[in-house]
Amino acid sequence: MAEAAMVFPVGEFHRRVAALQDQMTLAGLQALLLTTPADVFYVTGFLTRFWESPARPWFVVVPERGAPVAVIPSIGADLMGRTWIADIRCWDAPDPVDDGVGLLSQTLCALVPARGRIGLPMGPETHLRMPLADYARVAQAIGERRMVDATAAVQQVREIKSEAEIDKIRATCRIADAAFARVSDFARAGRPLAQVFRDFQIALLGQGADWVSYVAGGAGPGGYGDVISPADARPLRLGDVLMLDTGAVREGYFCDFDRNFSIGPADPAAQRAHAALHAATDAALAALRPGMRACDLHQVMADALRAQGAVPGGGRFGHGLGLSLTEWPSISPKDGTVLREGMVLTLEPGLEIAPGRIMVHEENIVLRRTGPELLSTRAPDRLPELAP
Amino acid sequence: MAEAAMVFPVGEFHRRVAALQDQMTLAGLQALLLTTPADVFYVTGFLTRFWESPARPWFVVVPERGAPVAVIPSIGADLMGRTWIADIRCWDAPDPVDDGVGLLSQTLCALVPARGRIGLPMGPETHLRMPLADYARVAQAIGERRMVDATAAVQQVREIKSEAEIDKIRATCRIADAAFARVSDFARAGRPLAQVFRDFQIALLGQGADWVSYVAGGAGPGGYGDVISPADARPLRLGDVLMLDTGAVREGYFCDFDRNFSIGPADPAAQRAHAALHAATDAALAALRPGMRACDLHQVMADALRAQGAVPGGGRFGHGLGLSLTEWPSISPKDGTVLREGMVLTLEPGLEIAPGRIMVHEENIVLRRTGPELLSTRAPDRLPELAP
Repeated sequence: MAEAAMVFPVGEFHRRVAALQDQMTLAGLQALLLTTPADVFYVTGFLTRFWESPARPWFVVVPERGAPVAVIPSIGADLMGRTWIADIRCWDAPDPVDDGVGLLSQTLCALVPARGRIGLPMGPETHLRMPLADYARVAQAIGERRMVDATAAVQQVREIKSEAEIDKIRATCRIADAAFARVSDFARAGRPLAQVFRDFQIALLGQGADWVSYVAGGAGPGGYGDVISPADARPLRLGDVLMLDTGAVREGYFCDFDRNFSIGPADPAAQRAHAALHAATDAALAALRPGMRACDLHQVMADALRAQGAVPGGGRFGHGLGLSLTEWPSISPKDGTVLREGMVLTLEPGLEIAPGRIMVHEENIVLRRTGPELLSTRAPDRLPELAP
Repeated sequence: MAEAAMVFPVGEFHRRVAALQDQMTLAGLQALLLTTPADVFYVTGFLTRFWESPARPWFVVVPERGAPVAVIPSIGADLMGRTWIADIRCWDAPDPVDDGVGLLSQTLCALVPARGRIGLPMGPETHLRMPLADYARVAQAIGERRMVDATAAVQQVREIKSEAEIDKIRATCRIADAAFARVSDFARAGRPLAQVFRDFQIALLGQGADWVSYVAGGAGPGGYGDVISPADARPLRLGDVLMLDTGAVREGYFCDFDRNFSIGPADPAAQRAHAALHAATDAALAALRPGMRACDLHQVMADALRAQGAVPGGGRFGHGLGLSLTEWPSISPKDGTVLREGMVLTLEPGLEIAPGRIMVHEENIVLRRTGPELLSTRAPDRLPELAP
């Protein structure tokens, strides 16, 4: 086994699989079927950008006891062979007649008793990364074995990060910190937003990101319209508020936070908005403890915004973070998830400055027994003004 | 409607929807349900990196007649509102109780007659990007309407690129051409492969890529081991063959091709391998015509490799390209798809130099009535040697 393909020592994976198997026992599951990049990486250490190609499905089966089994296209045999996984079963994909259906069905039949239950994530924030018709064929081929939802089991385990994982996320946050510190080098009046997005990605790579899976942002006079649009060719103008948000990746782990800037002197309304968001984040940092529910943490930030005379935004105010840009839970009024020690979260309050003008602010933290520890370097309380 | 969110004039989308609706009529479908980034972008022009977050599902329903309807999280209302789509129905996601299930079910019931058939891609190279449990709820809520596979309908239409799409893919290929021309600036003996991958991504962004969804490659003495691994920290050495492969993106359209380099003077076996792959690509460029099947094109390249005394690799020798890094069809012995005018394809022969040592070579083309037109700038026939 070459170390090259191992982001963690093997003990980390033993711990993860044992934790999943504990949850499986509680849920009465005899196996877990995983199909997505984050779940497969979590259990095996198999890390590749090849997921970008939708041509091939990939499967990992976690049995009730013992090590996981990989059922994968043969193009991945070499890389999977460099992880800790010993039982690797391959087929030549893509195969229009049987794209792993037979091999996966055989594997499930061998590992799961005749009336056993096979869990797979079917719930919130999940999807099945294989053709739906092939899933139906597998469900048919496994006889009386039943496919049931295992979202809760996976969520319970993946939500709590080990110290090794926290170190990875902290390292990625440091990269984004350093890239944000360079925004003044390339963001100025007259420069198209699309170019600023490119320069920001270059800065992230220059600071050590392996790749940049997510950059979003916005710019507009005294605020921006939304936070998910790609950049357009519009040049930055004096008085614009510029926001850049990134999910950069290093060794498979994401950061996810943003920073706001004013192009030239900041508009007083934008300054007030930034101060209100900073105060709301301070309130969250002060109040957050293990045992608090996600909805209560949302309430803390919404109340702090209202106390500043601000109108809280309608979206969620943060979420889990780690192997994906966003993970469970949602810091939202609708999510009663109890926040636990070891969770890595974003704190992301937003507000409406005026109709169609918003501002959002985001930090990354890990929840310790005594409260949150920042993983991102806290933003300044005053909206930074860039030389125009 | 702001032009900012429109990569194409609206006529392009009218043409696409009309072509899909023709296929739907042939297949007896009263609606099409789309959930993935490529399918949604294809029909609406909705382009965002926000898909990176697995938290929210997004739906577009194409009715038998008339314009598509977007059923999306309200965080996307502003951006979708800047596309040509007029009927946009939103809910506040994520919602742990009803994450769009009710709104999507209502929409399907309103657009599709009581015993109608709703097509969705369920076949090869597809997946359903929504929680499986929610899909089951929708299927229950729509009464006697049936969900059926619509892969063929979508594939038939998306496989043929318009001139506007071909221009986009060509523009992205030009960016990669320019970045490959700079590899000698940063790839040399002693430099870690991981740093070369970063520098290559920086070069792609510097040449105008909006983002870089895919970089892979390999390096090793006289060849490399596989083509999907992330880079490790191992420094390049004299005599290594370095391969870099990229799926960069501009305005939503991918390129996908690679280039091989020798660090210092090339090993004769590596030179022969490169020449054989170049000859195999030449053979494909000479033979390819509309009406040829994908498996026959594979045969042309495999025969050309054998004629050079080479051992053809076991994987596919290319695939479709455009809105995704890889699309239907597969240039493989198992795929009988008839290649048609307007298809954009990669030609990607591979061979085994020695056990565990491979070389692959890739070009991007559009299939014209009279044969292939290159979109990538043809690689040199001799393996380029970089100053060590």
